[in-house]
Amino acid sequence: MSTQAADDGTPLDASVTSVASDPPASIGGWAVRSADPDYRAAVLDLLGALAYGELSAFERLAEDAKFAPGLVDKAMLARMASNEYQHYQLLHDRLVEVGADPTGVMTPFVEPLEAFHRLTAPADWLEGLVKAYVGDAIATDFYREVAARLDDDTRDLVLRVSGDTGHAQFAVDRIRQAIEDDPRVGGRLALWGRRLMGEALSQSQRVVAQRDALSNLLVGGAEVQGFDLVEVGKMFNRITEAHTRRMAALGLAS
Amino acid sequence: MSTQAADDGTPLDASVTSVASDPPASIGGWAVRSADPDYRAAVLDLLGALAYGELSAFERLAEDAKFAPGLVDKAMLARMASNEYQHYQLLHDRLVEVGADPTGVMTPFVEPLEAFHRLTAPADWLEGLVKAYVGDAIATDFYREVAARLDDDTRDLVLRVSGDTGHAQFAVDRIRQAIEDDPRVGGRLALWGRRLMGEALSQSQRVVAQRDALSNLLVGGAEVQGFDLVEVGKMFNRITEAHTRRMAALGLAS
Repeated sequence: MSTQAADDGTPLDASVTSVASDPPASIGGWAVRSADPDYRAAVLDLLGALAYGELSAFERLAEDAKFAPGLVDKAMLARMASNEYQHYQLLHDRLVEVGADPTGVMTPFVEPLEAFHRLTAPADWLEGLVKAYVGDAIATDFYREVAARLDDDTRDLVLRVSGDTGHAQFAVDRIRQAIEDDPRVGGRLALWGRRLMGEALSQSQRVVAQRDALSNLLVGGAEVQGFDLVEVGKMFNRITEAHTRRMAALGLAS
Repeated sequence: MSTQAADDGTPLDASVTSVASDPPASIGGWAVRSADPDYRAAVLDLLGALAYGELSAFERLAEDAKFAPGLVDKAMLARMASNEYQHYQLLHDRLVEVGADPTGVMTPFVEPLEAFHRLTAPADWLEGLVKAYVGDAIATDFYREVAARLDDDTRDLVLRVSGDTGHAQFAVDRIRQAIEDDPRVGGRLALWGRRLMGEALSQSQRVVAQRDALSNLLVGGAEVQGFDLVEVGKMFNRITEAHTRRMAALGLAS
């Protein structure tokens, strides 16, 4: 999979943030692929992680709305949170459709995600915005990396819930304005962005270490036997590189 | 307007909670009625109050989701919050459509609503559920009281956003189960319900005292001149009576 280089000179918009651009080749539909129990287990793991991720994102965005400096900003955060909830609902309904227990498949991911949020509680409105922007972009990158390895039905769902929730540009505008108003803000937010990425990687590594089926899916489809730490490392590197480009485009050194 | 008596023997469901059941006679559409500046001001006041009420409900429900004893309950609260946000969006879009500034019309209602929430912060999951259930029911009763006095276009919108957000039955089931498990819970929640209604009335009275245009609308349409405290009092009494019946049906003395 190729990575998409961002031109430093172009204006930053949500479309610049992707790490993966090639349309992936089909490996067939869910009906065929899910006959393989390892594949089925891997996809349920993935959907469980995504579903709890969305529910958790809902909670954090709603919480951040409290920091909003005005009603327009507050409503924008509420909208983002509401969009995350809609994504959660889609994932939940799909889990029920394929005969899985949503609570059961989400539960293994509760602790790592809550740990991430506990370790990256924003201290103010701008930190919350950077977290929403960076977190959403990392999640989108991750979804798109994984999508290439999925059956058509699961891929369609994953790409649907990884669509822009409409707030990337909003966050970028607000953050740039804040740095323009007070350049010292840039230094603080650059540190914050680095910390967010570090904690995200740390929790992701924990999940990879604990969830064999999901890890196999990440490194090249369920037919790949054994757990290839190098391949997972490369994927995390691609996501980190995309993060670095996004931070630079925001005017933040990472 | 007649009030709808709840039979104590019938099972409680969301449809029992209404205070107003007669379909109101039309007073014409927005295009005609809004030519009257007093009427226009009253409707903008109303939509501003409802819009901020929805945004505020979103925030509080999202906050209550943190108390949820499990993922199913947490997701249910998130769904309720997301529904409130969708209602906010409809009201916001309508305000823009009629040339109003949403922030401007919402601002007078921020303080009374925040005061209500500050004075009624739930101490736990059950108090949060009772507040969500009772608060939603009071709001619905209020919407339906007001709807009768509105032009067709505004009435359609108000009835649309006062539709069941799908959580009345959920809350009722959870609260009844908790009382069954531990009857002492009933006493505590009965006190809590009384306090919620008291604070809601207190803040509503403040709004009525401060917003002449809105008050005129409440007491019988903008053509009614002067502010009739007796009529407003009667409306509050109808809403209080409906609250009392709901609490009794929950097994809670109010």
